[in-house]
Amino acid sequence: MNETPLETIPAGYGRAVRLRAGEAIEIVNVTGTQVIDTWAFVEGEGGEYMSLPHTRVETGRMVPRPGESFLTNLRKEILRMEEDTSSGIHDTIMAACDAARYQRLGCAGYHRNCAANMNEALAELGLPARECPQPLNLFMNIPVHPDRSLEQGAPVGHPGEYVRLRALCDCVVAMSACPQDITPINGADRTPQDGHYRIPSAG
Amino acid sequence: MNETPLETIPAGYGRAVRLRAGEAIEIVNVTGTQVIDTWAFVEGEGGEYMSLPHTRVETGRMVPRPGESFLTNLRKEILRMEEDTSSGIHDTIMAACDAARYQRLGCAGYHRNCAANMNEALAELGLPARECPQPLNLFMNIPVHPDRSLEQGAPVGHPGEYVRLRALCDCVVAMSACPQDITPINGADRTPQDGHYRIPSAG
Repeated sequence: MNETPLETIPAGYGRAVRLRAGEAIEIVNVTGTQVIDTWAFVEGEGGEYMSLPHTRVETGRMVPRPGESFLTNLRKEILRMEEDTSSGIHDTIMAACDAARYQRLGCAGYHRNCAANMNEALAELGLPARECPQPLNLFMNIPVHPDRSLEQGAPVGHPGEYVRLRALCDCVVAMSACPQDITPINGADRTPQDGHYRIPSAG
Repeated sequence: MNETPLETIPAGYGRAVRLRAGEAIEIVNVTGTQVIDTWAFVEGEGGEYMSLPHTRVETGRMVPRPGESFLTNLRKEILRMEEDTSSGIHDTIMAACDAARYQRLGCAGYHRNCAANMNEALAELGLPARECPQPLNLFMNIPVHPDRSLEQGAPVGHPGEYVRLRALCDCVVAMSACPQDITPINGADRTPQDGHYRIPSAG
């Protein structure tokens, strides 16, 4: 039981938090439908980031299971997937939505997007803009069919499920409550929802 | 029928070629077992590169089929998968092997690796070193099981099969004949082989 209050990531926006090694963050699927694009960066100037391609080589899975760790692009452990009360359905292979994605989907003007949200969130912590790595797309359902086609699947989450990520080094975790409202990746009503997280107290 | 001579990528090494928009490269699986890590970069200083995560969003497939294009990190078309005489089994989700990977596999000294090969090949064209993006791992077999576990599968290629990639802009294609000799990804005998490519004449 965790009494730490929930923080809100406003629908379509981003947030970032600093974690010291040993601290954790719980990202909570309050609505059951909202995808949270998530990134992690090692503190400092080295540019090191959580890399899903490197993590896959190490874990031999599309998505790490509880007890397994995410690696950086330098193959160092950055976050441990400590607990996952969902069914384990998260995406690790689809790029974050960005301005170019919405242009290709036919949007005339600017559309909020996860890549820009990542940098807005980092800027709020005084950190410079950077290229957007492949995110950990929490609660996003991308079935891989036997013919290797991919499906933008309907959400399969349950309200209240969460993942707890434990920092294995000092790092910054950025999150975006995905603003996608053209495809149904955030639910059939195509209405992005707030995201939520909490920082559980030690122990 | 193509009479263009085959060029060799020595086993465990890299090569890069410049392609003008409209030119093509055929990468040939002569032995049937050798993985060729492949990257593409837009000519110029912009840092734009072929991005498999962005390509997947557009094509809705793990691996593009003939007629489909690879996108860059800016979602511009860079290469078309024009022909693929293999069974279409290529990997797009596993990071290139690098020095850190071989350290984790227990190698005491330096081991040749695809990430370094990419930069060695670029250097031969006078291009600066850069971060290694997720490669297109041609002829590499990574089955995705229903439980979302991944398998470092045995090669399923047939000698002589090839892919033809057509440049949709001026670009550089880098290739590495993967030096992996600890896992059996390049065949059960764990002996990396030469890779091969050719530049078909126009038309």
